[in-house]
Amino acid sequence: MRLFNFEDATGQSRIGALLKDQPTQYIDLCATDLQIPNNLLEVIQSQDLLGRAAKAMSQSDSVKGNIKDILYKLPIEWPGKIVCMGLNYADHAKEGGNARPEYPSFFMRGPSSLTAHASPMIRPRVSDKLDYEAELAFVIGKKIRYATLDNALDCIAGYSIFNDGSLRDYQRKTTQWTIGKNFDKTGGFGPYLVTPDELPPGCHGLNIQSRLNGQVMQNANTKDFLWGVAETIVLITECMTLEPGDLVITGTPAGVGYARNPPVFMKPGDICEIEIESIGILSNTIADE
Amino acid sequence: MRLFNFEDATGQSRIGALLKDQPTQYIDLCATDLQIPNNLLEVIQSQDLLGRAAKAMSQSDSVKGNIKDILYKLPIEWPGKIVCMGLNYADHAKEGGNARPEYPSFFMRGPSSLTAHASPMIRPRVSDKLDYEAELAFVIGKKIRYATLDNALDCIAGYSIFNDGSLRDYQRKTTQWTIGKNFDKTGGFGPYLVTPDELPPGCHGLNIQSRLNGQVMQNANTKDFLWGVAETIVLITECMTLEPGDLVITGTPAGVGYARNPPVFMKPGDICEIEIESIGILSNTIADE
Repeated sequence: MRLFNFEDATGQSRIGALLKDQPTQYIDLCATDLQIPNNLLEVIQSQDLLGRAAKAMSQSDSVKGNIKDILYKLPIEWPGKIVCMGLNYADHAKEGGNARPEYPSFFMRGPSSLTAHASPMIRPRVSDKLDYEAELAFVIGKKIRYATLDNALDCIAGYSIFNDGSLRDYQRKTTQWTIGKNFDKTGGFGPYLVTPDELPPGCHGLNIQSRLNGQVMQNANTKDFLWGVAETIVLITECMTLEPGDLVITGTPAGVGYARNPPVFMKPGDICEIEIESIGILSNTIADE
Repeated sequence: MRLFNFEDATGQSRIGALLKDQPTQYIDLCATDLQIPNNLLEVIQSQDLLGRAAKAMSQSDSVKGNIKDILYKLPIEWPGKIVCMGLNYADHAKEGGNARPEYPSFFMRGPSSLTAHASPMIRPRVSDKLDYEAELAFVIGKKIRYATLDNALDCIAGYSIFNDGSLRDYQRKTTQWTIGKNFDKTGGFGPYLVTPDELPPGCHGLNIQSRLNGQVMQNANTKDFLWGVAETIVLITECMTLEPGDLVITGTPAGVGYARNPPVFMKPGDICEIEIESIGILSNTIADE
């Protein structure tokens, strides 16, 4: 299933599921089955509710709508924590002047840094160095600590797309990148949470691309991860428990704006799209604050 | 007021307020006034509920208890984000081999890294390099962006104490400190949220000390901050919105274990106390996982 949070024309908060054969149509799960709460995090934690969602999708009398009429909300509106990886593609490490790492660089984003699909990414008033980063994201559905390569993927409720928007001047004010990664509404996230049954294990071998105003800026494949999704979960859970609603983003390939010659930064009116094969397209316009 | 979350002998979750003149006695605010919810975050956001709390404290028939009978919980159980400062005292920057910084080093902790007063700080099975860091903490009660030095302190609901427990080997695996600061239950936080009216503005001029098994390890004063509390809020809110329930921790002075000769790391059975003048004592035993 491709699940998403949205607000309908009356301002009601809902969960939708995209129809496979008619990709502009969705089923309003909450309206079709009143037992399904308008809380996607609650749904992905419950086998019963996921079963109800699947049933709602196969009903002939389900409540349908067109995605052009909705306002997308964040797939998870209030992640418990957002664990981010830096330097998970060798080519991106190289373009930033970093050696091929032996351990990933982890940092965190806060919920205030997120922005939904089709909502603007905000260029703040204090910097014009807003850069894009195409990333595969996954959301935790089951609590896990000390994962093994064998069971790591079991904790994933769904995959999604992330644009790890970064203010490069703030990111490099000190050795710690965090502040440059936490400006309000700079992290695009969505549109869908795609359940793992629709994707190859660990999303291995998927093309990932960013486009700025239609021009391809990053073009890579998740098979080039230095640490795949299962390995990443093993490394993180050696240190901390991953809990339902936590979000992990897996780093970006080469081609970011600041490493180009001349550098490219996003400006108001730009459209930045991140596409991951079999997952979808995350699209955000850039707007000044 | 000195407010705290606790579990009473029957396992009920409550809010307590310490009595000034009898510091082993508390008033059970929820039992005294049934309109006060057992949610400290909700209380600190509401002038009405804070007023009810103050009234409950002055009632002759309030429900009292002894703090030896309670289990302390985290003052804020699920912070929206936890923004941490590194290198906010010149002497600590120097002992770690860092130049006196021109901008603070920010990083984040996740909620899974927290542990309450009088609960153990956990030494994980993968590292024996658990170090203490005495820090002043404050909790946000009002949403704020682009604070000025004049209004910055208005957003603070209360001050507390934090032990920014760090696994030094993981902290230094890469340039990013985050992973070494996010092991489960390594960040001591509490015991109280002290309302700002009981403290000097921005907690300026308070002694701050860490003690390991009674021996003083860090001994400093918040007047030696490179960035005081108001300046810190100005810097953070230039980048992101601080929201009710967010937690900010303000960096640690010299004297941490790893910079000693020979280095000192915490072991199971150790007791680490952080005391901040006029705020209280945060005490945690160290336990193996």
